[in-house]
Amino acid sequence: MEDFRLKPYKKDFTYSYTLGAFPSIELFECHPFSVLRVVISDNSVGSEGAEKLTGLANEYNVPIIIDNKALSRVSPKDNVHAICAFNKYTQKLDYNKNHVCLVSPSDMGNLGTILRTLTAFGIFDVALIQPAADIFDPKTVRASMGAVFRMRFEYFNSFEEYQSNCNKNRKFYPFMLGGSNLEKAEMPVGNENYTLVFGNESRGLPNAFFRVGQPVEIVHLKTVDSLNLTIAVGIGIYHFVKHTD
Amino acid sequence: MEDFRLKPYKKDFTYSYTLGAFPSIELFECHPFSVLRVVISDNSVGSEGAEKLTGLANEYNVPIIIDNKALSRVSPKDNVHAICAFNKYTQKLDYNKNHVCLVSPSDMGNLGTILRTLTAFGIFDVALIQPAADIFDPKTVRASMGAVFRMRFEYFNSFEEYQSNCNKNRKFYPFMLGGSNLEKAEMPVGNENYTLVFGNESRGLPNAFFRVGQPVEIVHLKTVDSLNLTIAVGIGIYHFVKHTD
Repeated sequence: MEDFRLKPYKKDFTYSYTLGAFPSIELFECHPFSVLRVVISDNSVGSEGAEKLTGLANEYNVPIIIDNKALSRVSPKDNVHAICAFNKYTQKLDYNKNHVCLVSPSDMGNLGTILRTLTAFGIFDVALIQPAADIFDPKTVRASMGAVFRMRFEYFNSFEEYQSNCNKNRKFYPFMLGGSNLEKAEMPVGNENYTLVFGNESRGLPNAFFRVGQPVEIVHLKTVDSLNLTIAVGIGIYHFVKHTD
Repeated sequence: MEDFRLKPYKKDFTYSYTLGAFPSIELFECHPFSVLRVVISDNSVGSEGAEKLTGLANEYNVPIIIDNKALSRVSPKDNVHAICAFNKYTQKLDYNKNHVCLVSPSDMGNLGTILRTLTAFGIFDVALIQPAADIFDPKTVRASMGAVFRMRFEYFNSFEEYQSNCNKNRKFYPFMLGGSNLEKAEMPVGNENYTLVFGNESRGLPNAFFRVGQPVEIVHLKTVDSLNLTIAVGIGIYHFVKHTD
């Protein structure tokens, strides 16, 4: 195992951290061989979370460190009693499953909340179009409550690059103001898969997406410019899960 | 007008602040006579937002102050170029309209996001059961993007107190794990109004709510404990708005 210093996360690191026992346990359940270290505080020793983590670390031969200073160095603002350091990994999407595609999401808290929502509704594949928030940033991991470890994800430099990886029986639904009413959208049938496409928090999707698949809108009063991104994804995915299979 | 110092907000103040031009303009549109001061930074003078605010301030005889130090004192972490100080106000709900009732919401960002979502779907009445986040905290106001000023709200010490204010043709729908499938819930009919009830971010609703109205659940995979509160409210309110009118 390569050596590394426990220091505040930066995007170009080859490793990252889970903050807190719950997402750390999720990490062990999904990617145990990525875990590099378990770090716990001295006063958490014996707590339920620390016990469970210690058991998992022993099972997978992961070093356990009791080090309060390292904890506050990695996460100075939070009062965190357990973290895991883990190697970042890359993945491929499952192109025979339904996807969500996020075009340039910028907020890590939003990204994490979206991942948590997607896994709750059985969507385990997310395509991210650059520039996009870092899926492995500890803030994303935390907001996802560890759901990030249950997902497949893939970054692309453009939507076209993502699209060129998809096969022909995939339907695309860009969510944008001016699309047709979501309630009246034609749902995929038979062996068709779908991708729900959402834009950036403040800019939404570029107009070019009016020519992609079937653009849809979640109809709402015009007193509010647009829905919060996480809410739009929640409503959109709930609608599709309910109206398919 | 009483005198006051521009200093960081505390819950017991009789006044609060809007951070940024957009929510400040919303405030003027909805509650112009609550505005105490407009404060802008010297380098924002002449910008579109500052011009609009200055016009509104002149129309309603509100003093305008150019004071960078006051801005950074009120909101040290944010890079805000315009704020309004305003008198907090109390209101009564409209008991002939549909409501959302939030039982002990604790996060101001969530509360603001929920208010923004509610106004987008035409719900303008929110009941808040104590202990609850402060609807006038600048963080709530900001997350709501000013939607808070378009809403009626009322704080209650208990759900029973709120319920005793409601008339008989109101249906209550507590959202909780173990409720019946939302998709199969009986919708209100005729002149019936509804109240959607949501619990705290981490605890949800107490079991006592199984005896209130028609408990419902947004069905999702059990890999995720529960949906994020803001997502649950978004899906819930979208469902009701779509199935009633």
